[in-house]
Amino acid sequence: MKDQDYMNLAIQLATGTIGQTAPNPSVGCVLVREGVIVGMGSHLIPGEGHAEVLAVNQAGEKARGATAYVTLEPCSHTGKTPPCSRLLIESGVIRVVVATEDPNPLVSGRGINQLKDAGLDVTVGLMKKEAQEINQKFFHFMKENRPFVTLKAAMTLDGKTATKTGDSRWVTGKKAREHVHMMRARHDAILVGKGTVVKDNPSLTVRQPVYGKSPIRIILATNLDLPDHLTVFHDDQKTYIVCGQSAPVEAFLEKHPNVGVIQMTNDTLEIDEVLTRLAALNIQSVYVEGGEAVHKSFVSSGFIDECHIYIAPKLLTGKDSYGVIGGASPEWMKDALMLSFDHVEKIGEDIFIKATKKMGD
Amino acid sequence: MKDQDYMNLAIQLATGTIGQTAPNPSVGCVLVREGVIVGMGSHLIPGEGHAEVLAVNQAGEKARGATAYVTLEPCSHTGKTPPCSRLLIESGVIRVVVATEDPNPLVSGRGINQLKDAGLDVTVGLMKKEAQEINQKFFHFMKENRPFVTLKAAMTLDGKTATKTGDSRWVTGKKAREHVHMMRARHDAILVGKGTVVKDNPSLTVRQPVYGKSPIRIILATNLDLPDHLTVFHDDQKTYIVCGQSAPVEAFLEKHPNVGVIQMTNDTLEIDEVLTRLAALNIQSVYVEGGEAVHKSFVSSGFIDECHIYIAPKLLTGKDSYGVIGGASPEWMKDALMLSFDHVEKIGEDIFIKATKKMGD
Repeated sequence: MKDQDYMNLAIQLATGTIGQTAPNPSVGCVLVREGVIVGMGSHLIPGEGHAEVLAVNQAGEKARGATAYVTLEPCSHTGKTPPCSRLLIESGVIRVVVATEDPNPLVSGRGINQLKDAGLDVTVGLMKKEAQEINQKFFHFMKENRPFVTLKAAMTLDGKTATKTGDSRWVTGKKAREHVHMMRARHDAILVGKGTVVKDNPSLTVRQPVYGKSPIRIILATNLDLPDHLTVFHDDQKTYIVCGQSAPVEAFLEKHPNVGVIQMTNDTLEIDEVLTRLAALNIQSVYVEGGEAVHKSFVSSGFIDECHIYIAPKLLTGKDSYGVIGGASPEWMKDALMLSFDHVEKIGEDIFIKATKKMGD
Repeated sequence: MKDQDYMNLAIQLATGTIGQTAPNPSVGCVLVREGVIVGMGSHLIPGEGHAEVLAVNQAGEKARGATAYVTLEPCSHTGKTPPCSRLLIESGVIRVVVATEDPNPLVSGRGINQLKDAGLDVTVGLMKKEAQEINQKFFHFMKENRPFVTLKAAMTLDGKTATKTGDSRWVTGKKAREHVHMMRARHDAILVGKGTVVKDNPSLTVRQPVYGKSPIRIILATNLDLPDHLTVFHDDQKTYIVCGQSAPVEAFLEKHPNVGVIQMTNDTLEIDEVLTRLAALNIQSVYVEGGEAVHKSFVSSGFIDECHIYIAPKLLTGKDSYGVIGGASPEWMKDALMLSFDHVEKIGEDIFIKATKKMGD
């Protein structure tokens, strides 16, 4: 085994926990002494031990003289746990291979410098790209100070999402719908418009056979005029309603004391402001499963980082059926929002397409 | 080399001529004597020699005692050329390997029987599937007595084909547009509605860098009310206008003597009748590049054999922009026309999806 093999193992450890560590990143750590793996760890539960802690605990005295492979720069500050850079130094590790620096510009490089200052041999950058991909949304959030936004839609091959009566059960098959639940589990929040909750009364949770954390629910409803019986008001999962400046917040909260309200500074819900407010709640990623109007707002704002489109092998037809994005058409085709295709995959009988912003960052 | 290798070569010969032999199928023939290829032929130009003729001419005396590998059952009737079954017998060939029978139920098996009756050793069915695929549209036409219909559209990732002003130049990139020209060359006819020719005044031909036969142009225009200046009226490529029962045909033909008119028996252009009339002109395949209305008629008729959708990595948005298929929405999602995905491919920056009818035939 070479450096790359051990780092690859650390990356596998981290990959396994994607979706369960928020707001922390997924991190893996492997400790190797004289060609023998003496400890492995992955950060499992937010608030509990970091990857380095679990690996060092496992290694015990065998950490002395070992090399540590970590997918992310060890933390240098005391948060819910003591700093990992200090732990590695005290454990007797003599060499540390780091895949990528901490994305937070305020702390980036500090952990590495502490290790170097203590005389450890430190290498940075091995499998950097792979390591950053594991925590794509965390990296984005730390750099941009706003949540990573994924716009999702399921449509027929002719671009339709529902019939004129609103019927959309189902556009895609079972496997594609399970894939959506997996994607929900990988985002901190799911966002829909008032229209969707009123029409479908969805629970917006992650359901079996997919296991994973259900995302926080965000519902855009300018006037807070939502019927009381909605499922999202009556289960244990957290829900926030984003409303306008003139919405009757007090009356609403009296009826729904467990629901959060995020009130905007005016009566049009500007996506820019919505995302800033979600960032303040440490929501690092948002899965937008809106209807035509919500999607239009997001495209107009320009804040779309990824676009997930599921296409079913059927033709619905209809000038009056529903599409993916509504609002007003631009005058010219060249005014469309440019993306690039990242990934195409057949899922069951359907096709899944992932597109990303054309220019990085 | 084994039987399969020689047949594979014959299939390669035939594949090379796809699109240039209409209304005849593409056929390849390889003659082998004592392990040496003594003749190869592919039907090149309609009205000229069949594959067997070219191969036998090339082999000359060496055909005596040879095995012939042909991708399609040799013809048994005298058409523009004498029957190939007779030619093979007279050339001294002693064994014939045929990939697939003639699809025309009226003549299927006759060529094979003539060969057998003359004492030749005949094997049928080697690489049958591959051989039928080469002439997919020809086989369809012979079995169904109606043209093979391909519905084509280029759309943005949100299912839009043009802005509200009709601007659609361009949805997809250069490579995808070249692919469309290649597909045009593989169909006998291209069909559009009045709206498309009036708005874009297209030439609907096959253009470089793609080489190939331009398809016959079919334009649906119920009342024949088309402006005189249209490109399709003023070049050498054949154009037919499909019109209703009350259209002023004589006045139109006086102005456009070189344009064909196909008049329907009533004033709604029923796709069923349109296809029957095109079949009578020996048009075996139709590439439908219509707008929303034409596509709706075809979906409603049920006569869609293949669907080619090009998807560009952009989001246009707009409730008022144009989509792939117009008309009235069905009430329920389950009433959509079911297809199945056959092929997905990235072409340049775009995605090409081919879907076919769900149930065979």
